[in-house]
Amino acid sequence: MSDIAQWDIFELRLDGPADGNPYLEVSLSARFAQGDREIMVPGFYDGEGVYIVRFMPDSLGEWTYETASSVSALSGKTGSFTAGEAAPGAHGPVKVANQFHFAYADGTPYLPFGTTCYAWTHQPLGLQAETLETLSTAGFNKIRMGVFPKDYPFNTNEPLYDVFEIGANGQRDFDKPNPMAFRQFETQVGKLRDLSIEADIIIFHPYDRWGYCEMSAEQDNRYVAYLAARLAAYRNVWWSLANEYDFLLDVKPMEQWDRYFHILEENDPYGHLKSIHNGDVRMNYDHTKPWVTHVCIQNWDVKKTPDWRDGYGKPLINDEPEYEGNIFPAWGNISAQELVHRFWITLLRGGYAGHGETFEHPEDIIWWAKGGKLHGEAWQRIAFLRKLLEEDVTLGLTPLGGTNSWPWSRMSAAEDEAVRYIYFGEHQPAQWTTGLPAEEGDYEVDLIDIWEMTITPAERIPPLVPHPTRHGGIVRGGKPDAAFGVRLPGRPHLALRIRPAK
Amino acid sequence: MSDIAQWDIFELRLDGPADGNPYLEVSLSARFAQGDREIMVPGFYDGEGVYIVRFMPDSLGEWTYETASSVSALSGKTGSFTAGEAAPGAHGPVKVANQFHFAYADGTPYLPFGTTCYAWTHQPLGLQAETLETLSTAGFNKIRMGVFPKDYPFNTNEPLYDVFEIGANGQRDFDKPNPMAFRQFETQVGKLRDLSIEADIIIFHPYDRWGYCEMSAEQDNRYVAYLAARLAAYRNVWWSLANEYDFLLDVKPMEQWDRYFHILEENDPYGHLKSIHNGDVRMNYDHTKPWVTHVCIQNWDVKKTPDWRDGYGKPLINDEPEYEGNIFPAWGNISAQELVHRFWITLLRGGYAGHGETFEHPEDIIWWAKGGKLHGEAWQRIAFLRKLLEEDVTLGLTPLGGTNSWPWSRMSAAEDEAVRYIYFGEHQPAQWTTGLPAEEGDYEVDLIDIWEMTITPAERIPPLVPHPTRHGGIVRGGKPDAAFGVRLPGRPHLALRIRPAK
Repeated sequence: MSDIAQWDIFELRLDGPADGNPYLEVSLSARFAQGDREIMVPGFYDGEGVYIVRFMPDSLGEWTYETASSVSALSGKTGSFTAGEAAPGAHGPVKVANQFHFAYADGTPYLPFGTTCYAWTHQPLGLQAETLETLSTAGFNKIRMGVFPKDYPFNTNEPLYDVFEIGANGQRDFDKPNPMAFRQFETQVGKLRDLSIEADIIIFHPYDRWGYCEMSAEQDNRYVAYLAARLAAYRNVWWSLANEYDFLLDVKPMEQWDRYFHILEENDPYGHLKSIHNGDVRMNYDHTKPWVTHVCIQNWDVKKTPDWRDGYGKPLINDEPEYEGNIFPAWGNISAQELVHRFWITLLRGGYAGHGETFEHPEDIIWWAKGGKLHGEAWQRIAFLRKLLEEDVTLGLTPLGGTNSWPWSRMSAAEDEAVRYIYFGEHQPAQWTTGLPAEEGDYEVDLIDIWEMTITPAERIPPLVPHPTRHGGIVRGGKPDAAFGVRLPGRPHLALRIRPAK
Repeated sequence: MSDIAQWDIFELRLDGPADGNPYLEVSLSARFAQGDREIMVPGFYDGEGVYIVRFMPDSLGEWTYETASSVSALSGKTGSFTAGEAAPGAHGPVKVANQFHFAYADGTPYLPFGTTCYAWTHQPLGLQAETLETLSTAGFNKIRMGVFPKDYPFNTNEPLYDVFEIGANGQRDFDKPNPMAFRQFETQVGKLRDLSIEADIIIFHPYDRWGYCEMSAEQDNRYVAYLAARLAAYRNVWWSLANEYDFLLDVKPMEQWDRYFHILEENDPYGHLKSIHNGDVRMNYDHTKPWVTHVCIQNWDVKKTPDWRDGYGKPLINDEPEYEGNIFPAWGNISAQELVHRFWITLLRGGYAGHGETFEHPEDIIWWAKGGKLHGEAWQRIAFLRKLLEEDVTLGLTPLGGTNSWPWSRMSAAEDEAVRYIYFGEHQPAQWTTGLPAEEGDYEVDLIDIWEMTITPAERIPPLVPHPTRHGGIVRGGKPDAAFGVRLPGRPHLALRIRPAK
């Protein structure tokens, strides 16, 4: 009989000193061992004399541990436990797979279809419950969420808990994390985990009136280590160093961002995914740096996806290809049709895209920051796309061409081992051949209406044999470039799926 | 009493030798003079012993002329004529104005709204008449058209006339232009002129099965000079050195293209507009070269318009932001909505765009190459945009921001002396303030539906006062950035027009 399941959390709680400032003064770690393996795991102070070490076993069987601390009461504590089979649906943390893609630790492919609710864990508890309720059926498997509350247009309310305690002088004391705030945050990370939703945790962001932006470098570093100690044992954690880090460069210069990455490397024994998200489109972080596991960017110009992907050579997530909505900030008001279009373009050019909703609300309860309910029309189409791809995608999609390739600079197309997709987007050819199979064979060719969410067999026709031309590069030699063609209804926002007949 | 009107054609016809090959062997020019001005004008051989010199007077009053030739029968012919007031609607040739724009010689602003019918003058006469009939009401004021016929998908028919004569050996003789072909071509240029439509004459293109691509450099040079001699007196002539010159670089290297420009400079006394159009988006000609009057490109990525405009520092025409239609080539099947959208983006980022239609037709009579009838839905909206801009634009539109400016990287906006336009495109804010007048005043603010072609007064609201933020660059200081705002219906493809109340 096992004590916990693989990839769940083993938690060791110890009583120790409550005097002074344990956050600054007491060190605690534990060495977890199984056979020849030893894993050093940092612990943390949870207030009221309670110290915690959390560990997520990544393999089955017996594990032993022994603590070490600057305080004797917390030192040399030993024990053991047995990790059993993972719970149903638990596949472990998500890792990079096949260079440009992701998979869970157990090898199950993971295609990120994320949304954004920056400050949802700082809203009233009822609203938080509603957010989880929405997420339970919306079809997203990742959410971007900040540790700190947000001070921004439509975000003027105070958070449920201060992230750091208010000191005797009425000022926030950035040497005293508020356990209430972190417990609430990790409770929600746990609930997301139970919904199979990855928590893409945003560690810093610029939108602040509480002073979190002005913490010293030392305080920042300690906070990052503390987060890792508290949260790394949650298998669904991703680290996003910042939302829009470039708007913080005046107070946190570039070398400091690099340092945060290193602190995570030092304190997260599981090597959770790590990235950092820009504001200005010209200010992408240098994602080629070795400590960045995958690329996060914000950019509306989604046809460039192959450039970013190839340039960084890592999985690419465009978290903010603008939001569906109607608020006045220019990034927050594209139509649902446009967002769904940008998802298809991004995915079929080898990247991943992020969802967000920013519709005006009488009480400023806007999904993108506070959660609540979804009011738009894109999320269903994104869930449809996810379901569609999960049917066939194994290694991850490889785009058929680069940003300047013919004709995939205009249309978008990608393939995996046994499937190919072509998305025509704003294009509406009445007939099509390019990109269809070169060999005759028993293929299933389906026409997909990305908005109506219909999948119907495409009408096959003989391949187009273009009139040969003297020059020009478009069509040469009067030979078809595939074994057959399809007739299309001649309207935009359609896609083709080609796969071997079952 | 005048003999001809200003900017019309004075034509001198002379009889001379018909033996040998006058095209190669006989030189002819005339010196036209008025007061201290002297203008050297090349003549040309029109077959059957007839030699012609054409001249377009750009100023009123008496002009004298005297011919010079390598043949005595054509030399020393003198005469005079009087140029009177320009005909109604005749404003002279179009020139560059205000660095990024165009105006007729008499100062009337000219905003190019062109279309493309590459080979319309090579179609049967009935179809040519139909094309002119369509053009007479479609609202275009420029057309791209080739001197040579076109060999291409959907373009397999033989031309009405061979452009060069078939010799005794059954081969085309590129030393013998066919006067019939050129007369037909210039007749149609004249009819376009009478419809106030500029003829953007494409001198070379790669889509050929008749051997026109393989003429020698010497033959090319002679042909360019001949075109200038025949056609430069038509006030509505523009020179486009090529459609997709880069697909011809294997037979016509770059220095040859430069040379063609120089030959036009030497043989076109009026300095008609000159440019050259690329195929591959990475192969723009270096339009900063001094002999290029304006930039012609083909590129679907129209939000980059400010980059190209600023980079070349000249008027920019994106002749092919892809075509409305449904044919299979990837450049020929965007929706009407998308083309209209791209027109608005291009215009409101300081450039000009070109129209084309490529709908499948049972007899392959496709507007883009053969003319005929328009079958699409974009042309009416483009005519609407033209009419709208012509109401107020005087100097030409200056974009409110560059490709990376906030928020005009996402929306598009431009202004002239007494008008400003904002196009929201795929964006659908429910309220808007940015870009509206900074000062309270008596403004007329209209909401434009670019597809429905409606213009209605916009609902004014107090300016938006965003919550101030610690960082972030979007909104600072809690001050509105304009004196008032507008409420919008929250759907895409809308624009605002702001101008002083009449």
